[in-house]
Amino acid sequence: MSPKALIPGLSRRQMLSVLALPLISGSLLRPEVASAQAVTSDNPLPSWNDGPTKQAILDFVAAVTREGSPDFVPPAERIATFDNDGTLWVEHPMYTQLAFALGRVKAMAPMHPEWKDTQPFKAALEGDARALAETGEHGLMALLMATHTGMTTDEFQTIVLDWIAAARDPRFKRPYTELAYLPMVELLGFLRANGFKTFIVSGGGIEFMRPWTERVYGVPPEQVVGSSIKTKFQMRDGKPELFRLPDLNFIDDNVGKPVGINEYIGRRPIAAFGNSDGDLEMLQWTTMAGGRRFGLIVHHTDAEREYAYDRDTSFGRLDKALDAAALNRWTVVDMKKDWKRIFAFE
Amino acid sequence: MSPKALIPGLSRRQMLSVLALPLISGSLLRPEVASAQAVTSDNPLPSWNDGPTKQAILDFVAAVTREGSPDFVPPAERIATFDNDGTLWVEHPMYTQLAFALGRVKAMAPMHPEWKDTQPFKAALEGDARALAETGEHGLMALLMATHTGMTTDEFQTIVLDWIAAARDPRFKRPYTELAYLPMVELLGFLRANGFKTFIVSGGGIEFMRPWTERVYGVPPEQVVGSSIKTKFQMRDGKPELFRLPDLNFIDDNVGKPVGINEYIGRRPIAAFGNSDGDLEMLQWTTMAGGRRFGLIVHHTDAEREYAYDRDTSFGRLDKALDAAALNRWTVVDMKKDWKRIFAFE
Repeated sequence: MSPKALIPGLSRRQMLSVLALPLISGSLLRPEVASAQAVTSDNPLPSWNDGPTKQAILDFVAAVTREGSPDFVPPAERIATFDNDGTLWVEHPMYTQLAFALGRVKAMAPMHPEWKDTQPFKAALEGDARALAETGEHGLMALLMATHTGMTTDEFQTIVLDWIAAARDPRFKRPYTELAYLPMVELLGFLRANGFKTFIVSGGGIEFMRPWTERVYGVPPEQVVGSSIKTKFQMRDGKPELFRLPDLNFIDDNVGKPVGINEYIGRRPIAAFGNSDGDLEMLQWTTMAGGRRFGLIVHHTDAEREYAYDRDTSFGRLDKALDAAALNRWTVVDMKKDWKRIFAFE
Repeated sequence: MSPKALIPGLSRRQMLSVLALPLISGSLLRPEVASAQAVTSDNPLPSWNDGPTKQAILDFVAAVTREGSPDFVPPAERIATFDNDGTLWVEHPMYTQLAFALGRVKAMAPMHPEWKDTQPFKAALEGDARALAETGEHGLMALLMATHTGMTTDEFQTIVLDWIAAARDPRFKRPYTELAYLPMVELLGFLRANGFKTFIVSGGGIEFMRPWTERVYGVPPEQVVGSSIKTKFQMRDGKPELFRLPDLNFIDDNVGKPVGINEYIGRRPIAAFGNSDGDLEMLQWTTMAGGRRFGLIVHHTDAEREYAYDRDTSFGRLDKALDAAALNRWTVVDMKKDWKRIFAFE
């Protein structure tokens, strides 16, 4: 919802590469296709290769669910929180919500003839990534507010659903919702089958995610925490509505994630899953509280089948959290090695 | 959490009576004791007298849960929201959270010798309701911030649990948690047994309620929406903590209730339950959206067994919402007539 949440710690130069979609989408190699395997109780994570990563997940779930185990956790307290971008679905070459904002600018342009000559809209319409980046955080915020506010919550939900049904990822030529990671979708289901309540805790916009998370991840709207703008209750023509205001309400990223978890969920998770420095504080909050806890980092190591990036990427940067993972014995997924299959369409 | 949320629309004169606890607690008549009846599938609401109110509840639940009914609602969308003070438990002679704040001032006074000579603390310590009221909304806010912030979330939870275990209501001489309305507790269970997800949506402090709502109402912390203060994530001695700041975050009352429902739950309820004008917008948001919906107002009509108040009370005022109930065909509970039994301890 905010430039910070969408593009954490972004320098002007880095923003260029964020928005320079055509420069990055070179790697169009066909990912290797693994045989589809059904999820069963004997084989709950068929898209995960055997090895220490998968075993760490299985061991943790066994320990906290076995009655009489010293690590047993009652079902009501089995809260698991998942980052979204880069953890549950693809975040490169740009955050999907940013693609949505750019798409909305194009769709709304006929009603805003002045955008042809006004930044950041001019740059967005012309696909001029460099000029767009030069408008900086201020420009990105203007873009977000113009495309995400000024309508009712019901109207915005329809806009999101229409866009997400029609839009296609530039590399995979698939709807974005098909770019959910199959191993993580299996993991969500495996945790729920073991009495966990699964939540999304994302820097992305809460109302951008809620319309489709139940269908894609099995996570209902009331279990989605994210960044938000303010809304206003009003009666119009005798009908109540919530109007979306161009005013930030909450940024659910970095130190905001534990704050959001406490405010929206009100319990401390016992397992947390992320992929970047934006998830560091959520994993600290989850795992550094005594008792058997589980922290997991998805490390993007597979340029052929997906993307490879960590310390030097312009966004979704995994640097401090990778060091913290070693220190705190969090489990690090080596995507190339640990995931037999990445997408359901493979 | 805020004076507005605790004491909606309160004038200085009215605040006097809010805080004038000894002046109001005159009615100590022993409530009539009804025979205890077990909740069964044949008799899911044993503490409700037969009549149109109970029938309206049963009819609504039957209509939205019967497959093939034109009013059928899938389980995932069966969201029901309940106000807390005056709807699920007693709110007179003062909001329980205000009693908590006054109790905290007394407990903290030894560490704050200056409070003996500083308002609003002096008045709170001396039990001088008039002087306390004269400090106005500003004074009440100072009282709330001094007693609700300046500690970690874990510490605050312990403080709330300790207080709620020890404190007693001045009239009934019972722990406040025993002043939950048995008919409403049955109703919460009846809805859950019919696939509803039950939420509390209260003007009270979210972290004041969460420590005990699961035990008392069967509503887990992640299904409690309320007013809140800001918190800050920090590491102290290598441990992560959330520190409670003296800064309002959200007021979940009046127009704030639909806003809070949208932000925290992300779905529109199909049933809402309240007792005062602070619930008006929540009931409008819930019921005025097409489809079979249910709105219910608890009308306090029983001075002998509980309290009787509506349009002329200083807080928990039921005025505009009572007019709206007639207009919108919301169900109004006549506490004296409709509730066979009010408390579990009777």
